[in-house]
Amino acid sequence: MRTIRVMRMSEGVEWAIHCCSLLAALPPEEALPAARLAEYHEVPPAYLAKVLQATTAAGITASVPGPKGGVRLARPPAEITLLDIVLAVDGDDPAFRCSEIRQRGPAVSDDPGAYRSACHIARAMWRAEDAWRAALRQTTVADLFTEVVTTVPPDVVVKGAEWIRDVQIRRRSR
Amino acid sequence: MRTIRVMRMSEGVEWAIHCCSLLAALPPEEALPAARLAEYHEVPPAYLAKVLQATTAAGITASVPGPKGGVRLARPPAEITLLDIVLAVDGDDPAFRCSEIRQRGPAVSDDPGAYRSACHIARAMWRAEDAWRAALRQTTVADLFTEVVTTVPPDVVVKGAEWIRDVQIRRRSR
Repeated sequence: MRTIRVMRMSEGVEWAIHCCSLLAALPPEEALPAARLAEYHEVPPAYLAKVLQATTAAGITASVPGPKGGVRLARPPAEITLLDIVLAVDGDDPAFRCSEIRQRGPAVSDDPGAYRSACHIARAMWRAEDAWRAALRQTTVADLFTEVVTTVPPDVVVKGAEWIRDVQIRRRSR
Repeated sequence: MRTIRVMRMSEGVEWAIHCCSLLAALPPEEALPAARLAEYHEVPPAYLAKVLQATTAAGITASVPGPKGGVRLARPPAEITLLDIVLAVDGDDPAFRCSEIRQRGPAVSDDPGAYRSACHIARAMWRAEDAWRAALRQTTVADLFTEVVTTVPPDVVVKGAEWIRDVQIRRRSR
């Protein structure tokens, strides 16, 4: 099969979801510096900072200033869906763009009202995107966090909690 | 909102769907040259040829050799779904790629079996893509063709039919 192009989401979506999952583990009002989030996930700090700017602009994460500052969730994890994160990072343009092909070529209508409603092909494509969005809306960061805690090996939870504690202790002792 | 990147489908998907819709209007065993399909839709012939190579490789369209040759549907329009066309043109890689972030950083498990099943984040993202694919599978080229014929202004159907007839007459008289 000869593929013309590949439709793909940015890596930033994956990073943002992992970050929100980790931030859901923080005690309320605590924050983690973006650089520590990059360290935890081993992703490039500069690009992760951009991703977190996007989630902050969308009201998913919040930036806390000061020596104990950093990034925290801006609202309860049960109120942040995968769709919120995807739209924040990758934008809310539809994946399918209609370029109004129907208004070109030899069979264009003389009826000025002919193209008032969207092309039936675009509508079918967008119905499918609605189904995708509806499914993304069904999973929250709280769901992901619960799933991690209940399914990963215990050593991951212990190491993760220790790492968060160490970061906070180092910050307090500065 | 600061968008990092935009997930988008190639224009080739739109073109291929429009082409299949038009090919559904041909009498059985008739074909249209790829160059005429490009002319009808006012799209670049070279790139459309690549798109049609992809749909032909996927068994959606077929290439008919000879002076009356060209492109035709390889199977009945009711047996070609939007999903078939999308996968043929844009490939069947998932839009969300899991880069196994969970296996990086300070909280990686010592348990060798910990990462046997897919990451729960990837699974949630892929469930949403399954919903998108299921929706794309529900619309066939026959549905699109019926919708065009029953909803566009009559002059479009008449002009389209005349254009097809003229192309075939010109080919026969050569």
